[in-house]
Amino acid sequence: MSTFEITRPFLEELEEKIIQADKTAISHLLADLHYGDISALLYETNPEQAKFVIESLEKEDAAEILSDLEEDFRVELVKQFDSTALSSYADFMDSDDAVDMLKEQPIQTREEVIALMRDRQKARHIIHLLPYDEDTAGGLMAKEYIKANINWDVKQCIEEVRRQAEKVDKIYSIYVVNDEGILKGRVSLKKIILSPDHTKIADIYEADIIAIESYLYQEDVAEIMQRYDLEALPVVNVKGKLLGRITIDDIIDVITEQAEYERQVMSGISSDVEEDDDIWKLTKARLPWLIIGMVGGIAGAQFIGLFEQDLILLPAMAFFIPLITATGGNVGIQSSSIIIQSLASKAVLKGAFQRIIKVFSVAIINGIVLSGIVFGANMLLVGDIKLSLVVTCALFFVVILASFTGTITPLVLARFKINPAFASGPFITTANDLLGLAVYFLTARALYALL
Amino acid sequence: MSTFEITRPFLEELEEKIIQADKTAISHLLADLHYGDISALLYETNPEQAKFVIESLEKEDAAEILSDLEEDFRVELVKQFDSTALSSYADFMDSDDAVDMLKEQPIQTREEVIALMRDRQKARHIIHLLPYDEDTAGGLMAKEYIKANINWDVKQCIEEVRRQAEKVDKIYSIYVVNDEGILKGRVSLKKIILSPDHTKIADIYEADIIAIESYLYQEDVAEIMQRYDLEALPVVNVKGKLLGRITIDDIIDVITEQAEYERQVMSGISSDVEEDDDIWKLTKARLPWLIIGMVGGIAGAQFIGLFEQDLILLPAMAFFIPLITATGGNVGIQSSSIIIQSLASKAVLKGAFQRIIKVFSVAIINGIVLSGIVFGANMLLVGDIKLSLVVTCALFFVVILASFTGTITPLVLARFKINPAFASGPFITTANDLLGLAVYFLTARALYALL
Repeated sequence: MSTFEITRPFLEELEEKIIQADKTAISHLLADLHYGDISALLYETNPEQAKFVIESLEKEDAAEILSDLEEDFRVELVKQFDSTALSSYADFMDSDDAVDMLKEQPIQTREEVIALMRDRQKARHIIHLLPYDEDTAGGLMAKEYIKANINWDVKQCIEEVRRQAEKVDKIYSIYVVNDEGILKGRVSLKKIILSPDHTKIADIYEADIIAIESYLYQEDVAEIMQRYDLEALPVVNVKGKLLGRITIDDIIDVITEQAEYERQVMSGISSDVEEDDDIWKLTKARLPWLIIGMVGGIAGAQFIGLFEQDLILLPAMAFFIPLITATGGNVGIQSSSIIIQSLASKAVLKGAFQRIIKVFSVAIINGIVLSGIVFGANMLLVGDIKLSLVVTCALFFVVILASFTGTITPLVLARFKINPAFASGPFITTANDLLGLAVYFLTARALYALL
Repeated sequence: MSTFEITRPFLEELEEKIIQADKTAISHLLADLHYGDISALLYETNPEQAKFVIESLEKEDAAEILSDLEEDFRVELVKQFDSTALSSYADFMDSDDAVDMLKEQPIQTREEVIALMRDRQKARHIIHLLPYDEDTAGGLMAKEYIKANINWDVKQCIEEVRRQAEKVDKIYSIYVVNDEGILKGRVSLKKIILSPDHTKIADIYEADIIAIESYLYQEDVAEIMQRYDLEALPVVNVKGKLLGRITIDDIIDVITEQAEYERQVMSGISSDVEEDDDIWKLTKARLPWLIIGMVGGIAGAQFIGLFEQDLILLPAMAFFIPLITATGGNVGIQSSSIIIQSLASKAVLKGAFQRIIKVFSVAIINGIVLSGIVFGANMLLVGDIKLSLVVTCALFFVVILASFTGTITPLVLARFKINPAFASGPFITTANDLLGLAVYFLTARALYALL
């Protein structure tokens, strides 16, 4: 199988078969495609068309696709199905994916689907998983894993693998538990293959493994799986009892979503929107941030109004307003970005004092270079020494101040458990604009009085 | 093993043992830690201290840590070792990690290390991997994987696993090749465990697998592994010969680095810098972008200077300059962000016309709401109807224009194979500021002539 690219002719063929209501032709057309490709195809169709495609496929394949789809799209698609149909797909979904799908449904649908499922063991798994918060380890874990009793031998363990083989697609490790279900360690398939049948699991298992408790936040789970290069991670309760297993594909989704969320925060978009969302949703996600920026702008206008007399005397002062606010903004966002990255990457034990010294050193170098350029350009282009001095000094102070607020803000946000990426968003940027304007006009007034 | 948090007392104890040059105590202190934790500890030390810690550990553990460290830190650390020491670590590293480390070294060190290695098979692997570009599949792949001939039976396959068990830490799948080494498919360990010894591999292998060619860019490799939920991916040459294997941990690094790179681009930082880099490196990464912003600001000042007469007549026009540039900036970045996400997430087949209609619809709604607010606030606070009308109209045009440029710029950048995230960076933002100012002053002049 090679990778697949969606083409317009292919999509048109699919749409034609949907219009003809030819399920056999559709299942034929999609037979060679991976579920990841069929998901991508469905995103190009509307929910009614997607429903028809899903119905044309084997239940097992349909279940894979329903698991793979993005939440927004799946919510619309699932509305097309009744509870009986959904339960027949849920029978073939991994427990964690079925739970994700059911959590998006009204409680009535949820209960109906669980009651109608034929795989009663899976239904029980789902009932067990539903209460966990979706942002925690409990919300990421699945019940599909293989466990072996520590008193078994390799042969019994292989029997268990055989019994579960169909249900557990990717085994990674076999978890070793005692009679009470307490997690004691793991044994790799490699070890199982290389050990004679009568070997005791107790003699070959690896006791020293990392397990996490169910309440851990998904960001911390992602961090742990990355730090320790794990492709699967067992979840236990407070007594150490094995509850489930988190696999790396879920963590990759967490990492990707986190990065996307951070970009949206930095860009001033308030919820998870995409280009193909409707106009109303797009507007709702964007307007609040724009209005915050506006209010800042209006406050800025009021503030500059206080200096109307200065502007009448020296209209050229207005020329440099964009330069002051833009440079302050750029310096602030750079400073925040470096701190945010350092907050994200690892425990920082360095002293606060040392950090502040460094921030100021960089700020002073930047300030000197930028002020120098502005002074030179000003003398060359305008030739007014007084104005040049004012702009130069003001810019220097703005750079120092923006470095400081850009550094402090993410640290303060992180302290209050707010995502530090907000420091690069429009709210803080607007506040910095105002601060920059204040420094500019106050410096100007002070200097003009002096010179 | 539970997860480990670095504490100051622990770090101080480690530093004390380093001063005492007590290797036994250090290896004792770190005995229970995972290599991921020891790496994190080393980041808190200087290269001389880190060298001493590495020397205190077993070669095998030291090799794991050297593989795990971030490039910047490793470059400084590796300078402390001679080629003989490095070769003894390289013997225990996975081939792809050894290649990463060697590529950071001068050619002489590289050649010496390879010549001094005891594991001659690994040395040959390294020589084979070195020529591949580090941003491609060839640069990510490792030679540590298990392959089986299609004519073997399960017993022969298990023998091969036994032979390679020590070298291949995580097996995932066994790749099936023919006599010429051409990749035919894979067989899972699960299948091996469940099949009798005399079963032919030819009868149980899965032929329909995804393989990629060595020249594929790492971003595309990451996309494929995510789309198809793979934890390992075989790499082949143009003839289909199996060359190596990429594992999911490398792809997670690619995804994380990509997200970090994008944030830096959006924040206007030109290279991979971290908070603990030295002042000079930090300045060098930041100044170029600030200077671009400055040049834009100076151009802006020149431009506003053209309207000095208008400003003398109506100084209040200056009050709204920050509002105009900030709103334009915010709208532009929002628009770019939505397009960037849609470019990143999936093939978009929607028509260009439909997209543009939508962008304008959202822009017009945003523009009307924001202009309305500004008009109201203006009438309330300033009470000058003419000025209010000018600011309101100008703002409306700026919102429409910024939506348009914010949407077009990332699309144009992507077309020219430039990372579309630059559209949210300082360069484009500065250009938008200038455009916004132009619209503001031209609208003002036109309206005043009219009213």
